[in-house]
Amino acid sequence: MSDTVESRLAALGITLPEPAAPAANYVPFTVTGKLIYVSGQVPMGPNGIEHQGKLGDTYSVEQGQAAAKLCAINLLAQAKIASGDLNKVRCLKLNGFVNCTGDFGDQPKVINGASDLMVEVLGENGRHARAAVGSSALPFGVAVEVEGIFEILD
Amino acid sequence: MSDTVESRLAALGITLPEPAAPAANYVPFTVTGKLIYVSGQVPMGPNGIEHQGKLGDTYSVEQGQAAAKLCAINLLAQAKIASGDLNKVRCLKLNGFVNCTGDFGDQPKVINGASDLMVEVLGENGRHARAAVGSSALPFGVAVEVEGIFEILD
Amino acid sequence: MSDTVESRLAALGITLPEPAAPAANYVPFTVTGKLIYVSGQVPMGPNGIEHQGKLGDTYSVEQGQAAAKLCAINLLAQAKIASGDLNKVRCLKLNGFVNCTGDFGDQPKVINGASDLMVEVLGENGRHARAAVGSSALPFGVAVEVEGIFEILD
Repeated sequence: MSDTVESRLAALGITLPEPAAPAANYVPFTVTGKLIYVSGQVPMGPNGIEHQGKLGDTYSVEQGQAAAKLCAINLLAQAKIASGDLNKVRCLKLNGFVNCTGDFGDQPKVINGASDLMVEVLGENGRHARAAVGSSALPFGVAVEVEGIFEILD
Repeated sequence: MSDTVESRLAALGITLPEPAAPAANYVPFTVTGKLIYVSGQVPMGPNGIEHQGKLGDTYSVEQGQAAAKLCAINLLAQAKIASGDLNKVRCLKLNGFVNCTGDFGDQPKVINGASDLMVEVLGENGRHARAAVGSSALPFGVAVEVEGIFEILD
Repeated sequence: MSDTVESRLAALGITLPEPAAPAANYVPFTVTGKLIYVSGQVPMGPNGIEHQGKLGDTYSVEQGQAAAKLCAINLLAQAKIASGDLNKVRCLKLNGFVNCTGDFGDQPKVINGASDLMVEVLGENGRHARAAVGSSALPFGVAVEVEGIFEILD
């Protein structure tokens, strides 16, 4: 099998989810020109929300990285629908928000869970600019939320 | 009256404010190509700052939604000046920050106050990608801050 | 000396740092078309991380402004590499995150440390849209993190 996004996903044992239809007046992504803005993704798995917890408290960096990875998988699932072909998608920017206590300082390590997955799946097209910050609380008590901007390549 | 942004605003009883001139070295919006970046808007009403409070503490979700709606009105006021005509404006992305306690998880419900208004006013052009996160504190103690990216349509 | 970005930096006594190579799967910036997305910058000085502290607690607004200024210097250093010439760079958007306690409300004053520097160095091209919000905690305990979007001018 040639080196494609699909072959890399298969090698990683990752099946991209079929995202649910939007339940509100916002949508999972918008496209303008070559840019795709993907809504903030939480660690939603096949059976619902996963990875609820607060870093610096009961939740470890390793658990946070798993949460960030699941957010990144959900970002890729949306970018696939938006673009039609992940082989023509480049990740420009990720913003990672970490639900954490006031003295936690390892946000970058946590968000590496998302950054690493992007490069594992998209290869060189996965190298993105990024911000990683702490958040006092996140939707449904999840540990991590990540939003992304992608480019549709020619 | 035909179905325009102006007719929808009138039906909603909303008068867009005349934004004040910027008081610092940042500006209310920048435009590049078809993109408008609008600065983070707080719930500023005709008589000054409204909606100071912290969700999860003394402030209810309904109050937070009203704060988010006022932020969205202020975003539209800026997008109108930037574009010259809100009928040619599409909302691409909103980022909503909710001033909340560490155990609050209803940021999406709060920011729906902004998302709903965008669609009520801009119609299909109001459907946007979005992120909703918690913030430990916001300027002047306001409950919500929302920033936005808009597209100027041909 | 003519009025260039270089002359302004010299007059301000600022030497842009040589940014370190990226240590992870994210990069300091990405470029698409005329847009430069620069990763969130922390107050990293010649001798490592500076300006660790929490606003509203032990850290003053003036100290926070100095932290924000250093973040802005690091943003400009990245934008220079990305563009090749800061005289052809415009700052479109800054997002400033302030590490602060739950009752702190002067995020805008703190982030003015970054906004002012942008205009001092880039002149009219430094006037940007902006959001300033509080964060429960930031990487390595720094007081401020700022990310930016820049435009490469023709």
